[in-house]
Amino acid sequence: MSAQTNTMMIRISEIEIDSSYLEEYNTILQIESKASVQTEPGVIAIFPIYQKENPTQIRILEIYADKSAYANHIKSPHFQKYKTSTLTMVKSLKLIDMNSLDMETMKEIFCKLNH
Amino acid sequence: MSAQTNTMMIRISEIEIDSSYLEEYNTILQIESKASVQTEPGVIAIFPIYQKENPTQIRILEIYADKSAYANHIKSPHFQKYKTSTLTMVKSLKLIDMNSLDMETMKEIFCKLNH
Repeated sequence: MSAQTNTMMIRISEIEIDSSYLEEYNTILQIESKASVQTEPGVIAIFPIYQKENPTQIRILEIYADKSAYANHIKSPHFQKYKTSTLTMVKSLKLIDMNSLDMETMKEIFCKLNH
Repeated sequence: MSAQTNTMMIRISEIEIDSSYLEEYNTILQIESKASVQTEPGVIAIFPIYQKENPTQIRILEIYADKSAYANHIKSPHFQKYKTSTLTMVKSLKLIDMNSLDMETMKEIFCKLNH
């Protein structure tokens, strides 16, 4: 699959987790993001990271090849399981649509853009 | 170069740009980030993106192989040029140290982790 950079969706999800559920949440998120990257060709990146100083502050960089890749992703069993099982753990969620400053150099950063 | 994920530095830079300089700033940042990714083996990713709804809000995902890769980066001529020429354009800058939730799956996302 060769992703067309002009149809791409880029997002940062800013998520705050209830600290009493943090370990459980992280396990579920890790399983979900790994399954997405490994099994969905249209998922260029789902990269979950957390603030060193405040680990309940999660950020996820998400890159989808296009809108239909995203639509397929949210219908996938692994995403549905993540979503329903973490609902009560999430204190806040912001989905922020982003654009890339340099679509060409992206290809040297994200591996799936070269296949 | 095979990056050791346990020594890696991950950061999100949150930058707000004075709107009157936005175009100029973006050009300078694009040149700098491209040069870093293309010429520095220890720069796994410098990925500049901006909020669709508010383009003066820049975010940069930065991944360095280790502390010495970062130290070399900030001494590089392209970084020094970026830093000195954009100082007056930047309204605010926050450097937020991050950890990855899944060091293994990162290798399938970021291309330079496989070389």
